[in-house]
Amino acid sequence: MNGKRAAGRKAVEEVKDGMTIGLGTGSTVYYFLEALAEKVADGFHMTGVATSQKTIDLAHQWNIPMQPLNAVKTIDITIDGADEVDASLNGIKGGGGALLYEKLVAKASKRRIWIVDNSKKVEQLGAFPLPVEVVPFGWKQIETYLEEKGAQPQLRRGDDNEPYITDAKHYILDLHLPSITDPHALADELDHLTGVVEHGLFLNMTDKVIIGYPDGQTETLAK
Amino acid sequence: MNGKRAAGRKAVEEVKDGMTIGLGTGSTVYYFLEALAEKVADGFHMTGVATSQKTIDLAHQWNIPMQPLNAVKTIDITIDGADEVDASLNGIKGGGGALLYEKLVAKASKRRIWIVDNSKKVEQLGAFPLPVEVVPFGWKQIETYLEEKGAQPQLRRGDDNEPYITDAKHYILDLHLPSITDPHALADELDHLTGVVEHGLFLNMTDKVIIGYPDGQTETLAK
Repeated sequence: MNGKRAAGRKAVEEVKDGMTIGLGTGSTVYYFLEALAEKVADGFHMTGVATSQKTIDLAHQWNIPMQPLNAVKTIDITIDGADEVDASLNGIKGGGGALLYEKLVAKASKRRIWIVDNSKKVEQLGAFPLPVEVVPFGWKQIETYLEEKGAQPQLRRGDDNEPYITDAKHYILDLHLPSITDPHALADELDHLTGVVEHGLFLNMTDKVIIGYPDGQTETLAK
Repeated sequence: MNGKRAAGRKAVEEVKDGMTIGLGTGSTVYYFLEALAEKVADGFHMTGVATSQKTIDLAHQWNIPMQPLNAVKTIDITIDGADEVDASLNGIKGGGGALLYEKLVAKASKRRIWIVDNSKKVEQLGAFPLPVEVVPFGWKQIETYLEEKGAQPQLRRGDDNEPYITDAKHYILDLHLPSITDPHALADELDHLTGVVEHGLFLNMTDKVIIGYPDGQTETLAK
């Protein structure tokens, strides 16, 4: 059993019959969705709200009932992955490109749980490149600004070498920062940048982290 | 002569041969573009950077040479309209729906000039509904949040009653605020809202305002 699977399957213990559940994106969430689909097949009632087209496709394939975010009043709980998480439960997300919808769903949720394998636990955020979702019309100006700031932005590209396009039709600049010593100050600066739609710093946005280990054990970090 | 035409034609005095010029959007900019096209026809050299598809279409029709924002290093001057402007040269823009690209072009510009008719000059900002450009995926959540804050958001719709879609494929919520007593605080709050791509508060973002009057006279406000 790998750590991702351990964390993903453990998370189904958090969901209750009748809930509206935010469904994250990525390889760890895959295992959560697999386990959730088994419950649904056994008669479990729920409504899912996806954070990406990829997750919608998986949910449809596995007969998980879904609604768009705009159609629900609130979300009871959201289960999502993360690319890095520190001891304060702050993290970086967006390696899979779904950061904008993930943050919108997280903001609409009463409880938020991240599921990760043990490789994602870090002392300090920033070894993982920080994704910044930007407006294609002005991406070069933003790149230049971030370059001058020393943030080493790199336009994310697909396998065809064309710019990667998010579900919301934006580009992503991955920032290769030497380190992130003050994530709150960095988030604040990025929030104010014209043309930046969203960034991958998720601060004070999770209530619990389930960490899976290669031996199948899990560990829980909570506030 | 109307005030818009007076301001628009006056603004051509600001541009010099060889400049890269940001071209705004709207009914006052229309007259500036008309006068600029006359100069270009007479041999004036320039490169235009548009803030909307509408302006690109006009520029092409009038043979004004254009480049996309991503293709230029910097913009020498931008001439744009505004929906409201106060004595501190702060303003509201976005009535025409082009606020995001207008702000990106303004940020890339060394000098910024607004052209307005005299009806746009106000004591305090806020009588004009404040446009907020939002991500369609989560617009209802943002609407609910702003409603609870008393901002009276209204989804902008087209003539077909479908949601108005910006050039960047977003929606617009027009905020019907009782008044804007502290534009900087409001801008800061909107900058931090997940799902808000940009808002129509343009603060400290113009160097000069040319105001046109119905009798054809113009007045200039500068910092």
